[in-house]
Amino acid sequence: MEEIRVVQWGLGSMGSGSARMVMQKKGMELVGAIAQTPAKAGRDVGELLGLEKTGVLVSGDPVEVIRRTRPHVVLLSTGSFIKDVFPQIKTVVENRCHCITIAEEMAYPRLQDPVLSGQIDRAARENGVTVLGTGINPGFVLDTLIIVLTGACMDIKKIKASRINDLSPYGPTVMRTQGVGTTPGEFEKGIEDGSIVGHIGFPESIHLIAGALGWEVEKIVQCREPIISAVYRETPHVKVHPGMVAGCNHSAKGYVNGEAVIELQHPQQIHPGSEGVETGDYISIEGTPDIKMEIKPEIPGGIGTIALTVNMIPRVVNAAPGLKTMKDLPLPASVMGDIKGLIEAGTV
Amino acid sequence: MEEIRVVQWGLGSMGSGSARMVMQKKGMELVGAIAQTPAKAGRDVGELLGLEKTGVLVSGDPVEVIRRTRPHVVLLSTGSFIKDVFPQIKTVVENRCHCITIAEEMAYPRLQDPVLSGQIDRAARENGVTVLGTGINPGFVLDTLIIVLTGACMDIKKIKASRINDLSPYGPTVMRTQGVGTTPGEFEKGIEDGSIVGHIGFPESIHLIAGALGWEVEKIVQCREPIISAVYRETPHVKVHPGMVAGCNHSAKGYVNGEAVIELQHPQQIHPGSEGVETGDYISIEGTPDIKMEIKPEIPGGIGTIALTVNMIPRVVNAAPGLKTMKDLPLPASVMGDIKGLIEAGTV
Repeated sequence: MEEIRVVQWGLGSMGSGSARMVMQKKGMELVGAIAQTPAKAGRDVGELLGLEKTGVLVSGDPVEVIRRTRPHVVLLSTGSFIKDVFPQIKTVVENRCHCITIAEEMAYPRLQDPVLSGQIDRAARENGVTVLGTGINPGFVLDTLIIVLTGACMDIKKIKASRINDLSPYGPTVMRTQGVGTTPGEFEKGIEDGSIVGHIGFPESIHLIAGALGWEVEKIVQCREPIISAVYRETPHVKVHPGMVAGCNHSAKGYVNGEAVIELQHPQQIHPGSEGVETGDYISIEGTPDIKMEIKPEIPGGIGTIALTVNMIPRVVNAAPGLKTMKDLPLPASVMGDIKGLIEAGTV
Repeated sequence: MEEIRVVQWGLGSMGSGSARMVMQKKGMELVGAIAQTPAKAGRDVGELLGLEKTGVLVSGDPVEVIRRTRPHVVLLSTGSFIKDVFPQIKTVVENRCHCITIAEEMAYPRLQDPVLSGQIDRAARENGVTVLGTGINPGFVLDTLIIVLTGACMDIKKIKASRINDLSPYGPTVMRTQGVGTTPGEFEKGIEDGSIVGHIGFPESIHLIAGALGWEVEKIVQCREPIISAVYRETPHVKVHPGMVAGCNHSAKGYVNGEAVIELQHPQQIHPGSEGVETGDYISIEGTPDIKMEIKPEIPGGIGTIALTVNMIPRVVNAAPGLKTMKDLPLPASVMGDIKGLIEAGTV
């Protein structure tokens, strides 16, 4: 089998991370890189990523790159919403390349946009390729990992899970969209006008879980509340005085037969430790048996998302054509050996 | 789609549990039950399981039951070793039924017996059916769950995991095979003559993990040590005085490139709490990132094995024909809705 040829589309911090990971793994070759930011175009991608020169120049012209380099897989790390990534996915698929994207809504795209999802699925099947949305959350901690744990249960009454993380390392965009550094009044206004969004992906995670278990979700109720700090907290990008907002406590409940059977919570703030909050990923299944799982500290979001994007390549290459979700594919696994061998071993 | 017709082969405590679970799930029908013990033959299976009468009589004649009831799936809960279950799997497969077995060696059968595994794979493909080995361990805690967690890692240096459980509820056979109630001298002799076996499944788990990651295992070193009790412990089946053996601490290391990169440990004893040992499932991945997972208390082995056997039915029905392992199939998930709907949703 020839090297697996990969194009990275989007060179922000997630896209740069997955491009770097592709370059460091056996059996894969980064054959092209597409930047959204014109300033990056023309630079050597290896240099841009802080590695050796590669001879592969960053381009701003997706169609040209894809047609010239004929990749097996395009990793798409550009936006969060289906509407934004749809034309990009279409370009990838119509050029007969598999597509793995970290767009949050693509974790379960039929929910937000059944029409565009149907078009993606059809185009993928017609072109014999596979499209997958993945990432740490949605895509892993609050859905894939929960689904797998339920596999050891004869019966499930309720699922509660929370991902408690630390926003301190993030930049100004994240501070703004989570409302960090606002007053409670500004936070409320930000939620109303949509400038403070909290976490993107709860409905997707709830539908992934329910779909895997065979539950029909009747409604989803989401709640975004300010985490008001009792102490002074600061990062290079924001200062939070006592009484101000240190983050957004976003939660969602999924109802089945009138009962909230899936409860997910994702409080995101800077310096949670300053008020004794321990970061971690927590899953609690009430059923037969009860299962209580903890991962402390939480799986880091950036590294996790980058890892999943690249680690799912063998699964996507081996999948039947069409639009897939994490629940449809074999277990995610870290690619440690030559990826060509992993793909061959997974071929049926 | 018609009801999924299931035959349960083997009516010990695991087989009885999965038969009961099949009867309680939507879209599945227990159409036959095969006992290894002649005394159970002729009884109504519902009554035998402590449920309503079903009209399905337990039989001692596997071929007759399978040919008459034409099941989609046969759940095989009879033995631990490939050599013992091979003729049974052959009977199932040659009658064009899928087979899910809890035989520990079937979790990764190519390891212990590539010849018989090849025959099973060929027979399954020829007959258009799928064969899977599963269970809590091997099959889930010390392999599937580890593999899934590595999916969020860019790189792995070492995997350590342990499953610390309580043998107190088990009967005399388990006490004997784990050496509970022996003196240290008797324990040593039991290990030598093979009457004390410890855990069955470490090599299988190690190869499942390595296979999923693309590591080549050079050797596996196993170690079985007596857990010598400092206090008095007893169960209805055994008494352990101080200085005697309360259980077997079984561990295994898998080597890749000269280094022990997979270390699994499974100390099994009665009343671990009497010396302050907390039961639980623990996974520690040293890599990028590090991941430390705990499930406390441990997922109960019996319920977990029963649940996985039944929960994997939709995955097995939808799989391509052949001999599969847990790493080859989509995520395990608890069957909560009508299983027919789950199978339809998973059909590509």
